[in-house]
Amino acid sequence: MKRKYSLMIHGGAGMSRNIEEYAPSLRRILEAGEKMLASDSPSLDVVEQCVSMLEDDPLYNAGRGSVLNSQGEIEMDASIMNGKNLSAGAVAAVRNIKNPVRLARMVMEKSQHVMLTAEGAMEFARGNNILTMPDEYFLTEDRRLQWEKAVAENTIALDHSLSQDKNKKLGTVGAVAMDTFGNLAAATSTGGLVNKKYGRVGDTPIIGAGVYSDNETCAVSATGIGEHFIRTVLAKTISEIVRHQNVNASEAAKMGIEYLVRKVNGLGGVIVIDKDGRCGSAFSTPTMIHGTVCEGGEIKLSFDKGVSD
Amino acid sequence: MKRKYSLMIHGGAGMSRNIEEYAPSLRRILEAGEKMLASDSPSLDVVEQCVSMLEDDPLYNAGRGSVLNSQGEIEMDASIMNGKNLSAGAVAAVRNIKNPVRLARMVMEKSQHVMLTAEGAMEFARGNNILTMPDEYFLTEDRRLQWEKAVAENTIALDHSLSQDKNKKLGTVGAVAMDTFGNLAAATSTGGLVNKKYGRVGDTPIIGAGVYSDNETCAVSATGIGEHFIRTVLAKTISEIVRHQNVNASEAAKMGIEYLVRKVNGLGGVIVIDKDGRCGSAFSTPTMIHGTVCEGGEIKLSFDKGVSD
Repeated sequence: MKRKYSLMIHGGAGMSRNIEEYAPSLRRILEAGEKMLASDSPSLDVVEQCVSMLEDDPLYNAGRGSVLNSQGEIEMDASIMNGKNLSAGAVAAVRNIKNPVRLARMVMEKSQHVMLTAEGAMEFARGNNILTMPDEYFLTEDRRLQWEKAVAENTIALDHSLSQDKNKKLGTVGAVAMDTFGNLAAATSTGGLVNKKYGRVGDTPIIGAGVYSDNETCAVSATGIGEHFIRTVLAKTISEIVRHQNVNASEAAKMGIEYLVRKVNGLGGVIVIDKDGRCGSAFSTPTMIHGTVCEGGEIKLSFDKGVSD
Repeated sequence: MKRKYSLMIHGGAGMSRNIEEYAPSLRRILEAGEKMLASDSPSLDVVEQCVSMLEDDPLYNAGRGSVLNSQGEIEMDASIMNGKNLSAGAVAAVRNIKNPVRLARMVMEKSQHVMLTAEGAMEFARGNNILTMPDEYFLTEDRRLQWEKAVAENTIALDHSLSQDKNKKLGTVGAVAMDTFGNLAAATSTGGLVNKKYGRVGDTPIIGAGVYSDNETCAVSATGIGEHFIRTVLAKTISEIVRHQNVNASEAAKMGIEYLVRKVNGLGGVIVIDKDGRCGSAFSTPTMIHGTVCEGGEIKLSFDKGVSD
């Protein structure tokens, strides 16, 4: 018997910009993903496609439109995970890759490894003919101005400063899906922090922090202050909440964010689809832009409250 | 009231070499750590010191004596975590750092971030006057011969090939401790895989995979095939088993390794000290070299069975 499919996407938490600006983009991407799920595409393909579309849209801090690091360059991170067998792929600090999430999937399927970084990941990409684009493709005028301002103010986009400004946008995009075969998948992608230094790795390419997917529990994609999600290993924590307490996606998301806040006073949000295809979201930031098609239902967009609230 | 302290260290799982060769080294390091704990040193200082001593000893694949990557160079990873507040630090792909675990602690305490990699981590190290050593310090004759053999045989030390040879040594060292104040800490360090390519990141610098520490649950350090620990996020999984099921260290270690084997047919082992200072270990490899001083008791060394079996 075919299962009802579910799909959720997010475009970041925190948000200082006009949220209505995101609605047409979220709707277009959810429609594309839903069409694939309705025709029995695997959830892994669907999350890859949705995150690629989020990367292609300069509205978000991932792929095209990524923020600039301290050298004025764009370095991107992405991850993907298959709930059927826990296979996973991740890349950190890659440049000029049109769709980092596609490279993460290639790492999962064509390397013996889970996580590749920087030059090594780029060498692997070249050996696998992944699509690259020139610097100009990624760089938007908004991002250049944002970076110049950060450099002038000497704000290194530290998490500390971010945590004092709840309205600051915390980039990162992601998708979770259950397909008609009952398989879960999750993917996350980001351009990182404005003016970041030191080869800092955030939560996005860390399996268990910014992404997790297990058919026995749930699929999770996270957005927020990376260090908070790394220290709490939040995506895996939510998966373990489902495994041990058998709660639904909405309860698990809420309990996960409560844990994030209690343990590290963390800022960010998650989207979750559980093993029964139910959808949930929660966040400790004022807003999180996200959209949902739950169990084959209507498209719903949400900004300032969780899907099931 | 002062608590009884506990300390565990490991020097890798899998082992093809004579295990008796490790006994004097393990004993010496446990004695040094025990002396610190007996005089009320914080567990964080103790795991840093014990892992530094393991790094300094060329017997182990960490610090001095690390294996060579595909370019014939030594790149090291390390991590450390404080169970009191979940603060954590990790470095990946660093070179010429005498004690990568000390750099990980510096990242934890002096940067706003958790994880720094490669050149960025090296730049941070230079800015913080961390002790470096020339290439010759790290390279042992054994490791050079091992690398030449791997290159000649074109074995890229793939996890796949490792998993077909259960006797192959899986490097990585680690320590977990509870101090007389009841605080837990954990640290892990490795030289990686022989002949590795592509900037591959293993589980050692991934918080939740190769290391975790939370005063509410337990402290964990892992060794084994990195990708298996990343996909299962095993250290955090064990912490969550304690949180949800309130089992002791020995049961949690056993349940964790059962999970590792069931989910990904994983190879490796863990040492665990729980929130009550009890000690446990488990592994799916034929052996794991480890030693324990549990609740202020005698030093015990163990190779082919878990501490509590």
